[in-house]
Amino acid sequence: MSYKAPVAQIDFILNHVVPFSDLARTDRFAEATPETASAILAEAGKLATNVLAPLNRNGDESPAVLENGRVRTSPGFAQGFRAIAEGGWIGLSADPEHGGMGLPQALNMAVAEMMSGACLALQLNPLLTQGQIEALEHHASDDLKALYLPKLVSGEWSGTMNLTEPGAGSDVGALVTRAEPNGDGTYRITGQKIFITWGDSDVTENVCHAVLARLPDGAKGTRGISLFMVPKLIPDADGRPGVANSLKVVSLEEKMGIHGSPTCVLSFEGATGWLIGEQHKGMAAMFTMMNCARLGVGMQGVGVAEAALQQAVAYARDRNQMGPIIQHPDVRRMLATARAEVFAARAIGLACATAIDLERATNDPVHAARAAFLTPIAKTYGTDVGCRVADIGVQVHGGMGYIEETGAAQYLRDVRITPIYEGTNGIQAMDLVGRKLSDGGDAALRLLDEIADGAKVAQADHPQLANQLWQASETLREATQTLLERDLPLRFAGAVPYLTGFARVLGGLYHLRAAQAGGESHLALARVFNARVLPRHAADLVEAVAGLDDLTGVSDAALAGDFAA
Amino acid sequence: MSYKAPVAQIDFILNHVVPFSDLARTDRFAEATPETASAILAEAGKLATNVLAPLNRNGDESPAVLENGRVRTSPGFAQGFRAIAEGGWIGLSADPEHGGMGLPQALNMAVAEMMSGACLALQLNPLLTQGQIEALEHHASDDLKALYLPKLVSGEWSGTMNLTEPGAGSDVGALVTRAEPNGDGTYRITGQKIFITWGDSDVTENVCHAVLARLPDGAKGTRGISLFMVPKLIPDADGRPGVANSLKVVSLEEKMGIHGSPTCVLSFEGATGWLIGEQHKGMAAMFTMMNCARLGVGMQGVGVAEAALQQAVAYARDRNQMGPIIQHPDVRRMLATARAEVFAARAIGLACATAIDLERATNDPVHAARAAFLTPIAKTYGTDVGCRVADIGVQVHGGMGYIEETGAAQYLRDVRITPIYEGTNGIQAMDLVGRKLSDGGDAALRLLDEIADGAKVAQADHPQLANQLWQASETLREATQTLLERDLPLRFAGAVPYLTGFARVLGGLYHLRAAQAGGESHLALARVFNARVLPRHAADLVEAVAGLDDLTGVSDAALAGDFAA
Repeated sequence: MSYKAPVAQIDFILNHVVPFSDLARTDRFAEATPETASAILAEAGKLATNVLAPLNRNGDESPAVLENGRVRTSPGFAQGFRAIAEGGWIGLSADPEHGGMGLPQALNMAVAEMMSGACLALQLNPLLTQGQIEALEHHASDDLKALYLPKLVSGEWSGTMNLTEPGAGSDVGALVTRAEPNGDGTYRITGQKIFITWGDSDVTENVCHAVLARLPDGAKGTRGISLFMVPKLIPDADGRPGVANSLKVVSLEEKMGIHGSPTCVLSFEGATGWLIGEQHKGMAAMFTMMNCARLGVGMQGVGVAEAALQQAVAYARDRNQMGPIIQHPDVRRMLATARAEVFAARAIGLACATAIDLERATNDPVHAARAAFLTPIAKTYGTDVGCRVADIGVQVHGGMGYIEETGAAQYLRDVRITPIYEGTNGIQAMDLVGRKLSDGGDAALRLLDEIADGAKVAQADHPQLANQLWQASETLREATQTLLERDLPLRFAGAVPYLTGFARVLGGLYHLRAAQAGGESHLALARVFNARVLPRHAADLVEAVAGLDDLTGVSDAALAGDFAA
Repeated sequence: MSYKAPVAQIDFILNHVVPFSDLARTDRFAEATPETASAILAEAGKLATNVLAPLNRNGDESPAVLENGRVRTSPGFAQGFRAIAEGGWIGLSADPEHGGMGLPQALNMAVAEMMSGACLALQLNPLLTQGQIEALEHHASDDLKALYLPKLVSGEWSGTMNLTEPGAGSDVGALVTRAEPNGDGTYRITGQKIFITWGDSDVTENVCHAVLARLPDGAKGTRGISLFMVPKLIPDADGRPGVANSLKVVSLEEKMGIHGSPTCVLSFEGATGWLIGEQHKGMAAMFTMMNCARLGVGMQGVGVAEAALQQAVAYARDRNQMGPIIQHPDVRRMLATARAEVFAARAIGLACATAIDLERATNDPVHAARAAFLTPIAKTYGTDVGCRVADIGVQVHGGMGYIEETGAAQYLRDVRITPIYEGTNGIQAMDLVGRKLSDGGDAALRLLDEIADGAKVAQADHPQLANQLWQASETLREATQTLLERDLPLRFAGAVPYLTGFARVLGGLYHLRAAQAGGESHLALARVFNARVLPRHAADLVEAVAGLDDLTGVSDAALAGDFAA
């Protein structure tokens, strides 16, 4: 029943489904040959399978606890984190100037998927540390970079992201945390932050908080926010962790899942901070962190889906109820649909990562637009598939799935956070139909052309699959055109179904490519996708263009169940 | 944020959507006038809102525990159960001969929904006790009835259902628990049973186990199984709880949810039992219990959905992120879709209950077939909606939804059992396309005619909604005909999507009836259903007739992620 990292599945997608091989033809990623990629994936797979996966139940059964103001993490988590750090996995895509390996995000995200499938609660630490590394690389002064980046890249220190406050969740601009200049180039940070993932721990010697706060002359809303580096222990002259900063862990949240990940309420009480980037431009730096993390969260969904599915398949092969239940048509339907969706979500995530890499290697705005367009889709579809497949995992186990000891329920409880954090899936979808269609639909239509072309290319070999995909791409094109003609509130009312419909059609393209490149198994899985998943795009897109009138027609009272009002 | 029993919503459905008013025109249910029904619902609503709902968090936070072999239940549960018992709610539909009120199941199920929404973990006790009452009424000897029924109906004693064993879940026929005659009319019962809901407790003075076991001359499989009454304490000559029977609680399961409901592993060690009904005919009696419980579980889904939705709406009205989030189009979309699905699931459940009542009152086989056809749909759609809406409840809360303190996550964890127990939803769907279509489709087609007629009747007032429903009913008719021409394995591969598609179309009928009978709010909600839920029937039915070939085309190894094999 234990998790086995899906190295070969990822390798196949990089080689046959997404344009990963284009990267080795660029200067920046010349080292990222298919052979190197395979070797790296195999090594990461061993770590995930052998070292991290055995820790997953520990995190759930022995959650992180707060003791005398310090977080004590779950048994084995410190060793697991050291293994990740010492393998160099935190700096896989970081700048070699500060100790990173400078490899593509496509590989980093593939590794992230495997680590998440093995132990989501632990993997959150490197994911957020990587986000902070990205933010510092792009925005910090040379001094800050020199001090913090080597420690973060090596995993000696970890990084956190401090956005949310009790009254400021999705509305980041409402935050009230203050930053006041000390006159020596540092700032006093005062305020409370909530939902701080790995906000403290005993797995690293220091914890570096990237904190959004408002300077005295900061405007209201998001334009007046700045980003600060606020270390738990202030580095001394030699860059070693020195005196404790004025901040404390108030409490840990009791959550539905990821019990091994300490989610902190942090109180900054005149803590010393250093400005990251320019004054009042904190949101730009935070978006750098979040963009990286958004795709990473999508891959978390894929990773947990893979793990949950592997366990469900193993159970279904083993469990006899009038024959092994894997042979029962309905169980097989659930498992095959899940496998088809995991493939699609993984391919979308890796396509997004590859677009990010191509953008960085070529500076071509077409790649940039593709990456930007795919990010909310990868985050939302990946996490939705994570929840759906973990749910199927529970169902396939029957009554045993509801018993915690089995582990199936943990996957569902753990993955349920992923459609929420790093911007809820609703916010992702609004980003897609708002900002990402603000180019007049250029990025969307280019991708639609690619889907239609893919269908045409496959016409001779797989006419039925290809025709179905082409028809779907036309339906999606119409819905896209309709949304483009509408104002934002109308688009928002259909944002999530539009995103979902897009993901299903795009998944159809990637399945078709796999069917052309791979063996019988990939063709068979494409057939499952086309019979059971792709057809659902039609209703998604009906809803996408349904508008807002029906929703505003139902009063708040009726939503609450009072129809008389 | 507290739960308010949806008395008016239920009343509306009984009066305008399902043929409940026909019942008062029968001899058996002449007392069940709309006025009486309203009064009963109002009374049950008060109990649910004021007495039971305040206990719900207790069950989660202070689960039932096993102490010295006895179960101690969550704080307040004993008082809550006494309130249910003393209100006469356990015997609402039981035979007046043994203390019941003889009222329709439609009312009983409406009450069950409200009690489930208030406190699912506690409501499981009366639900299972009612199941045992039904089984005894239909199958037990007069002596057993006279001894047990008054105690069960009054709630002095509670009842359990003992089917499952470690190797016998959905395959009940595989059970190995033995029953050996003592020669005095009693039997020695020996074996282990798992997943026994409320298998022991301190809320009643006795617990009556209905246990499936095999007599020495019992054939293999389900034909050799008999049902026995095995009380925890053997009644003495005066019918009072006497000496302890030879059975014990081995352990309680640690579950994902319904922590307040003690789920026991029970060991019967030569326990004394009394035969219920005939030898080797235990499955028939057990099906009587399960049929009642199946619909009850569907109503549990509706109840938890209602509770989760109420809390989500309250939160969304209160939570400000650039305005109250209930005004954000995507949040409103989630809430309105949830409200539309709750309405549909409730109407389907009450239509099923009313058909059961009409069958009992008239002995008309058409009503019997309708009840039988609707039972798996009501169970599956009700519980699926329960999970979907509880999931929306978490999502609407954003990060707060993932924090246990909020209570949103508890609804999701609690309701997740309902698609599993009393026959998984996959088994329900197989029952629908197997046994329930074995009449040549008569029951299905009669219901389809009713849907088409409903669409025609509404044509003048609501042409768009009516046309859409009529088209959907035609698509459903075609899919039904296709399934009827197929053998069982092929039907089973599409069973769940067929059931789901059927529920969505049927929900369209009930929404249309509500739109005709009710005010603007019901019309608005019907529009939401027709824009966002009903269109999904098309892909459901594509999948329903997709057959089995695509599923068997994917190897077991590929399902596990190994595409090379």
